[in-house]
Amino acid sequence: MTEQDPLVIFTPSGKRGHVPRGTTVLDAARRLGVDLDSVCGGRGICSKCQVAPGIGHFSKHGLTVSEDALSPINAVEQRYDEKRGLKPGRRLGCQAQILSDVVLDIPPESQLHRQVVRKAAEARAVAMDPATRLFLVDVAAPDMHAPTGDLERLNAALAAQWGLPEARASLPVLARLQEVLRAGHWQVTVALHQPHTGGEAEILDLWPGFFEGPLYGLAIDLGSTTIAAHLTDLATGAVVASSGVMNPQIRFGEDLMSRVSYAMMNPGGAGEMTTAVHGALDELARAITQEAGIDPRTMVEAVLVCNPVMHHLALGIDPVELGQAPFALATSGAVEITAGALGIRSINPSGRAYVLPLIAGHVGADAAAVALSEAPEKSEDLVLIVDVGTNAEIILGDRTRVLACSSPTGPAFEGAQISSGQRAAPGAIERVRIDPATKEPRFRVIGCDLWSDEEGFEAALGKGGVTGICGSGIIEAVAEMRMAGLLDSAGLIGTAEQTGSARCVPEGRTQAYVLHDGSAAGGPVITVTQGDIRAIQLAKSALYAGARLLMDRMGVTRVDRVVLAGAFGAHISPLHAMVLGMIPDVPLDHVRSAGNAAGTGARIALCSRAARRLIEDNVRRIEKVETAVEPKFQEHFVAANALPHASDPFPELEKTVNLPEVSFNTAVSTRRRRR
Amino acid sequence: MTEQDPLVIFTPSGKRGHVPRGTTVLDAARRLGVDLDSVCGGRGICSKCQVAPGIGHFSKHGLTVSEDALSPINAVEQRYDEKRGLKPGRRLGCQAQILSDVVLDIPPESQLHRQVVRKAAEARAVAMDPATRLFLVDVAAPDMHAPTGDLERLNAALAAQWGLPEARASLPVLARLQEVLRAGHWQVTVALHQPHTGGEAEILDLWPGFFEGPLYGLAIDLGSTTIAAHLTDLATGAVVASSGVMNPQIRFGEDLMSRVSYAMMNPGGAGEMTTAVHGALDELARAITQEAGIDPRTMVEAVLVCNPVMHHLALGIDPVELGQAPFALATSGAVEITAGALGIRSINPSGRAYVLPLIAGHVGADAAAVALSEAPEKSEDLVLIVDVGTNAEIILGDRTRVLACSSPTGPAFEGAQISSGQRAAPGAIERVRIDPATKEPRFRVIGCDLWSDEEGFEAALGKGGVTGICGSGIIEAVAEMRMAGLLDSAGLIGTAEQTGSARCVPEGRTQAYVLHDGSAAGGPVITVTQGDIRAIQLAKSALYAGARLLMDRMGVTRVDRVVLAGAFGAHISPLHAMVLGMIPDVPLDHVRSAGNAAGTGARIALCSRAARRLIEDNVRRIEKVETAVEPKFQEHFVAANALPHASDPFPELEKTVNLPEVSFNTAVSTRRRRR
Repeated sequence: MTEQDPLVIFTPSGKRGHVPRGTTVLDAARRLGVDLDSVCGGRGICSKCQVAPGIGHFSKHGLTVSEDALSPINAVEQRYDEKRGLKPGRRLGCQAQILSDVVLDIPPESQLHRQVVRKAAEARAVAMDPATRLFLVDVAAPDMHAPTGDLERLNAALAAQWGLPEARASLPVLARLQEVLRAGHWQVTVALHQPHTGGEAEILDLWPGFFEGPLYGLAIDLGSTTIAAHLTDLATGAVVASSGVMNPQIRFGEDLMSRVSYAMMNPGGAGEMTTAVHGALDELARAITQEAGIDPRTMVEAVLVCNPVMHHLALGIDPVELGQAPFALATSGAVEITAGALGIRSINPSGRAYVLPLIAGHVGADAAAVALSEAPEKSEDLVLIVDVGTNAEIILGDRTRVLACSSPTGPAFEGAQISSGQRAAPGAIERVRIDPATKEPRFRVIGCDLWSDEEGFEAALGKGGVTGICGSGIIEAVAEMRMAGLLDSAGLIGTAEQTGSARCVPEGRTQAYVLHDGSAAGGPVITVTQGDIRAIQLAKSALYAGARLLMDRMGVTRVDRVVLAGAFGAHISPLHAMVLGMIPDVPLDHVRSAGNAAGTGARIALCSRAARRLIEDNVRRIEKVETAVEPKFQEHFVAANALPHASDPFPELEKTVNLPEVSFNTAVSTRRRRR
Repeated sequence: MTEQDPLVIFTPSGKRGHVPRGTTVLDAARRLGVDLDSVCGGRGICSKCQVAPGIGHFSKHGLTVSEDALSPINAVEQRYDEKRGLKPGRRLGCQAQILSDVVLDIPPESQLHRQVVRKAAEARAVAMDPATRLFLVDVAAPDMHAPTGDLERLNAALAAQWGLPEARASLPVLARLQEVLRAGHWQVTVALHQPHTGGEAEILDLWPGFFEGPLYGLAIDLGSTTIAAHLTDLATGAVVASSGVMNPQIRFGEDLMSRVSYAMMNPGGAGEMTTAVHGALDELARAITQEAGIDPRTMVEAVLVCNPVMHHLALGIDPVELGQAPFALATSGAVEITAGALGIRSINPSGRAYVLPLIAGHVGADAAAVALSEAPEKSEDLVLIVDVGTNAEIILGDRTRVLACSSPTGPAFEGAQISSGQRAAPGAIERVRIDPATKEPRFRVIGCDLWSDEEGFEAALGKGGVTGICGSGIIEAVAEMRMAGLLDSAGLIGTAEQTGSARCVPEGRTQAYVLHDGSAAGGPVITVTQGDIRAIQLAKSALYAGARLLMDRMGVTRVDRVVLAGAFGAHISPLHAMVLGMIPDVPLDHVRSAGNAAGTGARIALCSRAARRLIEDNVRRIEKVETAVEPKFQEHFVAANALPHASDPFPELEKTVNLPEVSFNTAVSTRRRRR
């Protein structure tokens, strides 16, 4: 290549170089290391290598491109355009030859490693690099004078035409190989799995001739209560369908520890729970492929994230050791198995499954997925990431160090163990506001677009009415009660006399606040009881104490920002969380919801082998803190009981709200003395 | 280490060096690269590291060894001696410390890589190097402050205590891991599989505390007719039990081609045959472990050798392509799978199976095993190796080049398609001698120790009597008939007048020779018919033509020696084979039977990972010749019809016997003219 050869400039990468006249665009891209996709390897079949040539003067590059910089549209392109349509201005990179200086734009959909899962806030992205991809190859026909197996000739073709390493094939694939090769007249499309570890590649499936795909993967977030899955296009990274089911293990125990107990008390109990979750995973896979209308055979990968108990049960490991100190995991590393080993049959028979690594006995693959999604190890400032479930997983870190722990918040934040509590479902109060002057509440209910004090609310509510209060609702209610002076900093509800609100009513020896009285219409009376307040206090103290423990270990008393992960994080109001002292004091606009970060992490691991390597490496480096054996935890826990806190200052919160300085202690102390 | 440190000399290796005073013998052996076994890693448990110290003057080494050259017998050795007995003069290498200059003999049973499968004739041996071995390790207990999985800590222990790479564990092994580690108080014995390819190691099984083993492997020779298996101790290489069953596929077709036809004609037919052979393999494994009285769990490896059709059917691959040119194999490389994938369940649940590579569409893994056992690529002189079955596999080679082909001999050599033919079983004539003067025969029958002309033969024969003639019997009969002048070089049997023997009787339009008339006792009349002679001629012509084709390709007209492999080779007489012209002319004492060379090859592959690498490499390098498409083959075939040959000289044979120059052509030509 000399200066006399045409100059080719690729955008957006800016990569440039001289190539001999007549070089195809695809070859030029390969020589210059430009990311241009191709499944058919330049046979003019797959159209993945489309480029948009520019014509005219490019002052930025100091280059004038003539109309005949590329060879004229040829018969292959013409046929493709007629049959499947080529966007105006587009050329097939494997057909168009470079005749003179040219600027070529590679549209995003033609980039093999196109970026997905863009996170605006972080200015980082994940490049497509799935473990399983399609490759079209022409295989040499058998030759009696050089007898080798069909598999060996297929491997030779993959090596020669794609530079791929030798791949093995399972016996069922091997059993189909000869027929498929002959049906395709020695041209086949191979779904090749190349492990992120650099281990042996495997031919997962093959199709006669050109198979366009796409291939799909399933990102599964296996929670104690619900199982969510996202069907993801492995070429584009796009989510094409999402689905969820209840975790059928609930019948063996609501929370994790009751399931561990079930396994300990019942011989074969762990196996029953494994069978149950396998059934649900398969059902989920079946439903989602059906919903998306895709052939299950094209779904070739699954990624699973979950907490350690769910992890062990899904893998058929008795979780008994996780029920007692030292909470020893059977394995903490990432697990690579067949999808079939997870009970998933509605998938390609050779489909693979990847389970993210666990961080510790209480900090699972779901937390690892959150860490993958939120990337604290890349953060310039100190970020606290909180994923609240029955246990809260807490991650604190920045570029220098990342710490993680789990804290036993219990299920109060999910609406359980709350007198009028319920899961987040239609009829549940999810938002609450209390007027500080009148102490009157207004609220919103899931499934209804209006606030309770808006016109037409009753009609919009429908006949189901108000049924209870969910996690985000109870948190807002408690925080609003505190802001309205119905609750003191110790968490005591005042009497009607003390608060001047008739909604404060006696409930046994304590007070309760009536949020909604639906009894006239035959519905429930929804109150926030003193017991509810205590449950929320216990949960929030555990969460805060966990965060403080990590901050101690990090040697800081403040964090720069807070990320709330999970469905819970998506629905909670940062202000209310901070009024309760759930999270350390930061400017309110430094609190962000990351949505389903665990699910996002699973999806990233599905799309990127580099991400799998990254999280495995990061998990090894994360410093684990076990709250159960840290003496300081109990101290932090007690101090965090007050609303927002007994001793830690909340200056940022105070800039926004003035919490009334009320105290209803006396009344209670009096009662206690009476006992 | 200085000259002042004690000098230690190990025999028989002769390795020597100075080690610091107080070094244990085991450590000294490791430092000096001496092959000393240990399963427990120096914990004084396994006793595999026993050595025999010499005392007195060793003039060869110029060394005088004092009685206190080693530390006195310690408590561990004393206890071991009391409990299990230590041979006189033996010390445990991990306990005895070197205090002054010493000569230490390592007995064969203490060598990890002890030699097995010694072949006196070849002066070569195979060193033990099985893929799966036992390792005792002490695993760190879990630590909440550094939470890693039990598997990760087990791997760390294997790395630290044995220098082993990271190993994976299947889910069933992972499910048992936690319980076993705790039962063994964090000491476990691991059965670790390290693939010969350098791929990822796998923990196949584990036992609490010290498990002595031994581990076993099963070498399987899967023939079209019979399946033979040898249970082999993976520590010593010794065969501890052998067993065989009929191949149940026989009911789908006697020979290979009829089974391929069955698969072609019957939908699901290949699957039926796969199921049948899987059942037989499992039954064989079950029977052999039961016979040997071992726990199937200790059987961790299987090696399979077989012809290509058996190979494909065993792996669940339809053999249809093997029934027609170009005889394309689905895969020709070695196959590594679970033993379960071959239907073998009476084995460790994680048990592995290794299938040797195939050489060509007609030259199978059994031929590869013969090549592994006979090692033509190491031969100084030119060796022709012949393995006769329904097809003959023929290998010709020396250090410079190895060629292989298969020749369609048909089943005549196995007694099939012979008028009185039968399998080699009690009642079958296996040896024949004909007096050249009287033309009277005498013979031996399988299951009887006497020749037919010896006193007491009838009584010794028992009531079953003579039932037929087997492969080796018919070959000897035909060769003896030729030597006695009953048969001319064209293969025609003379009439009673022409031969002067009343045993030559008309049979249709041709003659037959009455070998045995059992009709008086109600038994069969056993004759050698002209049809039988023709069948043997066709078979031997094919065999000889194949050998000649390889000789042509090699550019030679003579070979230096002939090796007859297989059960057939073990029973055939070299003289008789050469009279028939089955094999090229060589001095008779240069014809050797290799016994069950395929089975030996399977056993070598079971004991040695290096052997697996070697045969995979060799098979790639063997030059394959396809007889079906070689025009010269037909020419050689026709020329080889005569006994011994129409044109090739047999000078070595002529040194031993003078074949009568008779010709019975006229009679036959006359008859032919009459047709």
